[in-house]
Amino acid sequence: MKTCTGHFTLPGESGCEQLTLDLARRWDADVIRDSDGTRLSPEIVSSGYRIYSTLCPIREHNPFLREHPECRQQSFLSTPPVTASSDRTEISLMDGFFAEQFQVNESPEALKYLEVWDRTENVRVDRDKVSYADGKVAFPSAPYREYTVSFLAWRIWEEISMYNHVTNHWDKEHLMVLDPYLPEAREYLTEWMKKWLDAHPDTNVVRFTSLFYNFAWIWGSSELNRNLFTDWASYDFTVSPAALKDFEKEYGYALTAEDFVRKGKYNATHVPPTAHKKDWMDFVGRFVRKLGRSLTDMTHAYGKEAYVFYDDSWVGLEPWNGHFEEMGFDGIIKCVFSGFEVRLCAGVPARTHEIRFHPYLFPVGLGGAPTFSPGGRPGRDALEYWVRVRRAMLRQKIDRTGLGGYLHLVPDYPDFTEAMDRILREFRRISALHDTGKPVGSGVGIGVLTSWGSLRSWTLSGHFHETYMHPLIHVIESLSGLPHDVRFLSFEDIRDGVPEGIDVLINCGWEGTAWSGGDAWRDGKILESVSAFALRGGTVIGIAEPSCAPDGFRSFRLANVLGVDRDDAAYSCHGSFAVPSDEMPGVCPDKHGLGKTVPVRIIDPKVRVLWQEEGMPVITSHPFGRGRGIYLAGYSYSPANTALLDRLITNGMELSLPHTDDPLAECAYYPGENILAVVNSSPDPLAVHISFKGKSYAVELEGSGMKTLDLSSETAL
Amino acid sequence: MKTCTGHFTLPGESGCEQLTLDLARRWDADVIRDSDGTRLSPEIVSSGYRIYSTLCPIREHNPFLREHPECRQQSFLSTPPVTASSDRTEISLMDGFFAEQFQVNESPEALKYLEVWDRTENVRVDRDKVSYADGKVAFPSAPYREYTVSFLAWRIWEEISMYNHVTNHWDKEHLMVLDPYLPEAREYLTEWMKKWLDAHPDTNVVRFTSLFYNFAWIWGSSELNRNLFTDWASYDFTVSPAALKDFEKEYGYALTAEDFVRKGKYNATHVPPTAHKKDWMDFVGRFVRKLGRSLTDMTHAYGKEAYVFYDDSWVGLEPWNGHFEEMGFDGIIKCVFSGFEVRLCAGVPARTHEIRFHPYLFPVGLGGAPTFSPGGRPGRDALEYWVRVRRAMLRQKIDRTGLGGYLHLVPDYPDFTEAMDRILREFRRISALHDTGKPVGSGVGIGVLTSWGSLRSWTLSGHFHETYMHPLIHVIESLSGLPHDVRFLSFEDIRDGVPEGIDVLINCGWEGTAWSGGDAWRDGKILESVSAFALRGGTVIGIAEPSCAPDGFRSFRLANVLGVDRDDAAYSCHGSFAVPSDEMPGVCPDKHGLGKTVPVRIIDPKVRVLWQEEGMPVITSHPFGRGRGIYLAGYSYSPANTALLDRLITNGMELSLPHTDDPLAECAYYPGENILAVVNSSPDPLAVHISFKGKSYAVELEGSGMKTLDLSSETAL
Repeated sequence: MKTCTGHFTLPGESGCEQLTLDLARRWDADVIRDSDGTRLSPEIVSSGYRIYSTLCPIREHNPFLREHPECRQQSFLSTPPVTASSDRTEISLMDGFFAEQFQVNESPEALKYLEVWDRTENVRVDRDKVSYADGKVAFPSAPYREYTVSFLAWRIWEEISMYNHVTNHWDKEHLMVLDPYLPEAREYLTEWMKKWLDAHPDTNVVRFTSLFYNFAWIWGSSELNRNLFTDWASYDFTVSPAALKDFEKEYGYALTAEDFVRKGKYNATHVPPTAHKKDWMDFVGRFVRKLGRSLTDMTHAYGKEAYVFYDDSWVGLEPWNGHFEEMGFDGIIKCVFSGFEVRLCAGVPARTHEIRFHPYLFPVGLGGAPTFSPGGRPGRDALEYWVRVRRAMLRQKIDRTGLGGYLHLVPDYPDFTEAMDRILREFRRISALHDTGKPVGSGVGIGVLTSWGSLRSWTLSGHFHETYMHPLIHVIESLSGLPHDVRFLSFEDIRDGVPEGIDVLINCGWEGTAWSGGDAWRDGKILESVSAFALRGGTVIGIAEPSCAPDGFRSFRLANVLGVDRDDAAYSCHGSFAVPSDEMPGVCPDKHGLGKTVPVRIIDPKVRVLWQEEGMPVITSHPFGRGRGIYLAGYSYSPANTALLDRLITNGMELSLPHTDDPLAECAYYPGENILAVVNSSPDPLAVHISFKGKSYAVELEGSGMKTLDLSSETAL
Repeated sequence: MKTCTGHFTLPGESGCEQLTLDLARRWDADVIRDSDGTRLSPEIVSSGYRIYSTLCPIREHNPFLREHPECRQQSFLSTPPVTASSDRTEISLMDGFFAEQFQVNESPEALKYLEVWDRTENVRVDRDKVSYADGKVAFPSAPYREYTVSFLAWRIWEEISMYNHVTNHWDKEHLMVLDPYLPEAREYLTEWMKKWLDAHPDTNVVRFTSLFYNFAWIWGSSELNRNLFTDWASYDFTVSPAALKDFEKEYGYALTAEDFVRKGKYNATHVPPTAHKKDWMDFVGRFVRKLGRSLTDMTHAYGKEAYVFYDDSWVGLEPWNGHFEEMGFDGIIKCVFSGFEVRLCAGVPARTHEIRFHPYLFPVGLGGAPTFSPGGRPGRDALEYWVRVRRAMLRQKIDRTGLGGYLHLVPDYPDFTEAMDRILREFRRISALHDTGKPVGSGVGIGVLTSWGSLRSWTLSGHFHETYMHPLIHVIESLSGLPHDVRFLSFEDIRDGVPEGIDVLINCGWEGTAWSGGDAWRDGKILESVSAFALRGGTVIGIAEPSCAPDGFRSFRLANVLGVDRDDAAYSCHGSFAVPSDEMPGVCPDKHGLGKTVPVRIIDPKVRVLWQEEGMPVITSHPFGRGRGIYLAGYSYSPANTALLDRLITNGMELSLPHTDDPLAECAYYPGENILAVVNSSPDPLAVHISFKGKSYAVELEGSGMKTLDLSSETAL
């Protein structure tokens, strides 16, 4: 049985030299890294392993920033609204915000951006009538209307550091955050980088975590709601008067506070981007790439490699925008909880793709639950995450894996050490399989249609648990382990016709979101394009509130293709077609159902109800020309629902793919050496039959287990 | 114990003379009536009872209408949409419609109103390019776009008659329907009416059922969806080229098909009315009143009284628009299933208010379930309906009651006869109580704020079971038996300030409906008015999606008052205030909950969560100035939820009202003779305590029972 060695990055820890070297040997590591809060001792650095050194270009610059406070990073903030009770209102800007994170930027060029808005009718109060003093803004108001103030704030505590500090009860200096946009900051940064490289002669790989701008993370003053806004893919933290001024020069128009705060909801990735936002992303992206390239060039000049961590201050990197390679990174590292994150990493054009496993070696996990602390079960957690990511790894190769955090926490949790033994064994087996050639795919082309298109391939914004309320994350988690060719399409991509090679078009999300597409559906050309695609034989899968935009003929603009429309109040005088239920074999949701579902009304008698719940149709199929429209009232990731989705995608197609008789087992076939890999998603043992090319194979799998079958000998390996 | 006699209308039936007279005696009837499909024989007519004779002015005119087909009634219809597959499309107009109900109006003046719409972008196809022939419309089309055709159709079967015909498998001539708008039709109608009056010398009361225009009821061609559109309060069936032409002359603008079909959804009452629709209602109303008055004048000239049935072809009567008395009716009759319908009838400015009980003496009920046929339990049904209406009758006087239908069905169902014995006994006792003076009220002024305001007081559109999906019907059903002063306010009524006397303002409904108010909430003056009301001490109760309008600062425009906002996708990056749960005594929903609920997010830490379900706040309270905002995520009528709503309305007020310790029992106090009436909403016996003016009374009630206590002697009567 072929396997491979190495390809694993172990976090080392000064003071735990023996443990570091023992675990490096046990887990066959080829790399040792440091982490945020740990250092590698000379003993480790010189132990013969390759060394990754973490470098965060924007923190650890407090002395410089104390001298140059104008080089700190900033953000637009919008105060909570105040209902006026008289004809003059005063709003204290920092009420509502975490005072350890923000400070009003009182410089004249920042105050120029300050705006007071009458939110009752969403009109800006005349700038000339607004005054600022001592953190307070005063303005003439109409009684009983609501007002907010948008303003530029300094960010005085780097947010990832702030989070780690608070979580681990650190007691050290708060790290500020450098904005390299100003020339003096860039000059300083270049010098600092040079010194850093000089000081790290043993480092083989500089692990950038990450570049310059963190995702937005705005904390509040109330302990009842510390987390006011978090968006992994937002550009809210990239702003400064200097950059705004340069933007205006280049684009010929000025951005305002409102472009960033958008009625106090900020620029959530879940909302379709405005043209202004896209321009700003483009502007920031070019800056980040240029400066990023200068850092990788310096790294390479020192004979080191440059890897980038695809998280934290990753904003502007955009590995899926077609320009990533311009930055010259040798590798990309992604932390993963889920299958979709594996595909998000694996598809980036880079030489080396590494995933960092969870759990992080921290006492508590992201949600605050114990991991490496009393009550924690890190081995169970690691296996759970592994089962989620493994199915995606079967589909596309990941080159390396690794861990992060404090190694000294590990010895108390032997279940974790054993889990990692198994995970690494399986990872290396999968890696070796990929080395024999690609696994066989279905050849079915799936287009996932969103406002973001390919830029947000294999992600919404952040981890699964941060975006679970959007059904699309459940869909792409299912797709991450299925054998189909998945592309992420924008409305622009399909406006003149759905591209060649797409057999199934998926539109999935709540009304008004970037995932269902919002106002893009007001464009008749888009509707023509999708209708034509279906009439000519394509399958359109609409999930939740697909193609929803207000003021249309119907709520689902694709109701003609889908045969159903949302059962809005406007329909409450209307009858619905009581079509007979016609269950389709293999289309049976998980016992928990499809998550939050949308009530719909059948508007065409040709609709077949494939599944209903309490009399409501939740899965329907509608013949439309030579194609069809399939509707799911919701979608929730589970093995059973994944099998259901796969059944709907491939219905009627003749595919030469292995098929298991239990949705808890999935398999992939590697024709290079005629090997079939089978994995068990459940923690319990499983006996399954796999049918493939007219033969049947019985396989017994241990809980969360994996087996490979050599079909040449027809024996389990 | 005081009671009263008579005040009951029995349907008689030719061929069942003895039965008629026996039941008239048993139930102490003072009136005998005919029904649709029955006649009274001379023996009954001359038996000494007062006689109601049903007169429907618009049907039974087939001979005239065969001669004058231009005097038939009409409606605009909109075809189901067709997705074009080439550059020319043909649509067959009657595809989709019930051929026994409609026929294309091919007259030149009707075809002028024909419109083809591109529904993909909602633009009208140039009229010059559209041709009509043989029931089909052809026009140039853009492939893959959707098109509908709007056209005028003759209605060739009067709809109530059609429904009764189909339900009862009648085998007689289909009755057409006269449109009295044309002068020749009015002239004919006047002559016919005169003949009818001459032919009914023994009739004391002409029971108009009703006037000229039925509520809209559009049937489809598919047996899978016979009922395409039903709206009890719609004016869709009032249209004709002649009326449209006169309207244009008077109002200075022309209505089009689109004003009526509104993207194929027609003018559902649940949707906020357009200015055009309101103009048309005004125009039709004046016509109906004028012609109605001429008929009541004729009736009075014959020494008879004129009562009108507030249902069926009631459109244009509008008993709540302030002009009802102009028509000269002596009484109004309403069929009732629910408490709110009692208040709807009782509040009309008329001398006599009569309710017609359900079940109707028909083999099957409205929903198609058996009543007076095998499997039916009409006695149980009658008691169930009685329990629902009785609580409202305790609050406001109804003068008379009655039944309708085929008396010959009754003897087979002795449970029904017994139920009616009891119902009539209780009705007469309540009637006598009202004669001693009004029951004591709370003095709390409630304003129910909708797009319709007072015009749709105590109703949405039709019966409870037709509008159950709108939470407001549940709210007004609860209010119908509570001791508060309820007014129905439009946005115009509150624009310059919530009127004096309103303590609690309720806005309840789904987004975009006439009940929550739709775009009215875009008006800053409305928001100022409601905020000012709450700041000064008013209570605002928002239910489901109150004050919702798109594109605002928040989804609930009153979020500042309510302290919560709908948890839309736009918020999925935002934190919510995790306020502690703070249950309020007496605020506990029915075990079935509040029906369909809306997920909300707490946006102000001052919010108190009064009830939560699965971690979601469903009832919250928010102090706002001297007042407060209360939010309920849904509302469903039940005795327990009624008690909850009452508790939220009266919280903190000192009221001198009797109070029962079980929500299944309600009571009303009649100070005239110091009597307390107590009713049991449940079918099971109930023992309750009533506290009033510092004293406590123990009362035992039989299932669905009622008792009255004379507080002077403190004994149960």
